[in-house]
Amino acid sequence: MGKVAIVGVGQTKFGKRSDASIREIAFEAFKEAVEDAGIMKGEIEASVVCSGSHYDKQRTPAGVIAEYLGLNPKPTYNVDAVCASSGVGVRNAYALINSGLHDIVAVIGFQKMTELRSDEIQEVMGRSGDVMWESPFGPTMPAYFATYANAHMHKYGTTEEQLAKVAVKNHFYATKNPKAMFQKEVTVEEVMKSRPIATPLKQYDCCANSDGAAVLILAGEEKAKKMTDTPVWIAGLGLASSPMSLTGRGLSLTSFTCSVEAAKQAYQMADITPKDVDVAEVHDCFTITEIINYEDLSFCERGQGGKFAQEEQTYLGGKIPVNVDGGLLAKGHPVGATGASQIRSLVHQLRGEAGQTQVKGAEIALAHNLGGIGMYCAVTILKR
Amino acid sequence: MGKVAIVGVGQTKFGKRSDASIREIAFEAFKEAVEDAGIMKGEIEASVVCSGSHYDKQRTPAGVIAEYLGLNPKPTYNVDAVCASSGVGVRNAYALINSGLHDIVAVIGFQKMTELRSDEIQEVMGRSGDVMWESPFGPTMPAYFATYANAHMHKYGTTEEQLAKVAVKNHFYATKNPKAMFQKEVTVEEVMKSRPIATPLKQYDCCANSDGAAVLILAGEEKAKKMTDTPVWIAGLGLASSPMSLTGRGLSLTSFTCSVEAAKQAYQMADITPKDVDVAEVHDCFTITEIINYEDLSFCERGQGGKFAQEEQTYLGGKIPVNVDGGLLAKGHPVGATGASQIRSLVHQLRGEAGQTQVKGAEIALAHNLGGIGMYCAVTILKR
Repeated sequence: MGKVAIVGVGQTKFGKRSDASIREIAFEAFKEAVEDAGIMKGEIEASVVCSGSHYDKQRTPAGVIAEYLGLNPKPTYNVDAVCASSGVGVRNAYALINSGLHDIVAVIGFQKMTELRSDEIQEVMGRSGDVMWESPFGPTMPAYFATYANAHMHKYGTTEEQLAKVAVKNHFYATKNPKAMFQKEVTVEEVMKSRPIATPLKQYDCCANSDGAAVLILAGEEKAKKMTDTPVWIAGLGLASSPMSLTGRGLSLTSFTCSVEAAKQAYQMADITPKDVDVAEVHDCFTITEIINYEDLSFCERGQGGKFAQEEQTYLGGKIPVNVDGGLLAKGHPVGATGASQIRSLVHQLRGEAGQTQVKGAEIALAHNLGGIGMYCAVTILKR
Repeated sequence: MGKVAIVGVGQTKFGKRSDASIREIAFEAFKEAVEDAGIMKGEIEASVVCSGSHYDKQRTPAGVIAEYLGLNPKPTYNVDAVCASSGVGVRNAYALINSGLHDIVAVIGFQKMTELRSDEIQEVMGRSGDVMWESPFGPTMPAYFATYANAHMHKYGTTEEQLAKVAVKNHFYATKNPKAMFQKEVTVEEVMKSRPIATPLKQYDCCANSDGAAVLILAGEEKAKKMTDTPVWIAGLGLASSPMSLTGRGLSLTSFTCSVEAAKQAYQMADITPKDVDVAEVHDCFTITEIINYEDLSFCERGQGGKFAQEEQTYLGGKIPVNVDGGLLAKGHPVGATGASQIRSLVHQLRGEAGQTQVKGAEIALAHNLGGIGMYCAVTILKR
């Protein structure tokens, strides 16, 4: 296989953006990415537009985004894997480049969620589960993940305080990321006292609905080397699926099997072991998800995720820094933008541009992007 | 670039399918394709699931389809380009194979539309236009295409009778396709007297909402040669975009610019000219669309599409047989299945298995799949 690099990244501030439409937030992030890549818009040969459907009345938004960004008549692709949309989009872009169809591709992830009422958004999110056999019976997104939390606590003795530690870490690092939605530290006590959402998950255990966009510019090896002295190479990719319904997953509610499979593929393709990863962004839609991710990605032993968080092994200086940009919990989670935003943060790490949260000498980074209730997982391994 | 072949095809009958869910119709077509390819399900390395969003409450249906078809934990991708979904899906699958990520990929296109009321479906379809600046002002899908028809009639003198000739041809050939929705011939007079929809388009000028699924199995060169003696090769691919709104298209309402661009790319990649095409499937969502497609694909001179239809140049025995499987107008147009169904018909032609509608000695075939109101176009050129 040839080599594909990320040569430009951009992102809006995540949060409430009642001042701008989807096309406008996409433009904001796109402009920053194009400038970062140092290219002219006309050099982009295709766009991969990533967002979760049904948050917006607009069907196939790639059409409006391509028009507004002035990318017609170039090919544009709509990618939807709910929360994993832009993680999957990166894989699509890699394939388009490596197949010889395109040389420079923009991955454009975005979402506007804050215009929906809370009940509307729960209804939309619930439908990322199986609408025939499961979601009509009422599970909301927090309820789905609370089921995982309860199973993990029951099986491994994971505690609510350990979950809280994840929220504390991610909110702490968000204060160092000017593009994060939340900019205020929280304590374990505050997390524990926050209002119940779905037992054992409380408000700070859950990410917030947010608006935002993130854009990555990818290029083939030859082009990338001409364009920049600091290309970040896509060294490994993994993608896997799990049953859409919890029912279909049998008794395994303490691990996301698609994460385990996607990680295996990505480690193999990159020819590395989990120990080689210097810094990671993992999908912390809920605190429990981050803890399970530690285990699924083999950052720690099975069942030890809670302890790993408690010991602060994923802080800077720990065994493996995770979500030091604030993660979904504190940076925000505008669904379609999340995968691209994770990779943007890691590109900054590998270029040595991560400022206060820089992992010294970082050479290998991993992004883990989970879709819906854990039925899609995309893992991307980057090398400088 | 390497070579990618289609090694298996399957399709449900198109029409009203109140007996089956989306997962069940997908399974029906999938089973037929897998058997046609002569492989075991387990050999399929990834699935590309193509459908238009918002016809169904289910978000990212790839999850339920992959689960029901027993494809977990293999990667699965959701592709949505409205009416061009599976045309784009084939391009995605080609890229995934040619990039080295996968060797055997299933493209699964489906849609269930007949459960929606007529007003609901018009509302959903309208939103494949720009929901901010255009669709709220009322254009329905027939109204969008009627605008093109009026412009073409005004500029080139195309007549309503010429439009009717397209419907007559496609309904005639549908009677020879057991999987077509409509099985009855119509006359020019019947088309002319059918009820007005959006002037000058009448009922028989418009395709009907339908349910159905179509599946293609694609494989890399080495695998394909081992699997079958009759691989059908993907020789050319084109994909292009146009502005999402008619407003954005300026005065050009007699041609779909994305079709012209996609065709140019595909002819170039396949290294052929339009004259080399032996048989074609083009996107006849309305009769006017087929006429414009003749011109955009250079099957005839600009402005001569109406005359080309009138002279029956696209019947078997004419200059280039088009939509001899019944086309969208008479075979049916279950949005996400259409691109794959077009290619299934062409694979039969190139294998010499098209029965009564066989184009003798067909060696090169072209599929043209248009999305929404003409903002996406995928062209695929096949060679035996």
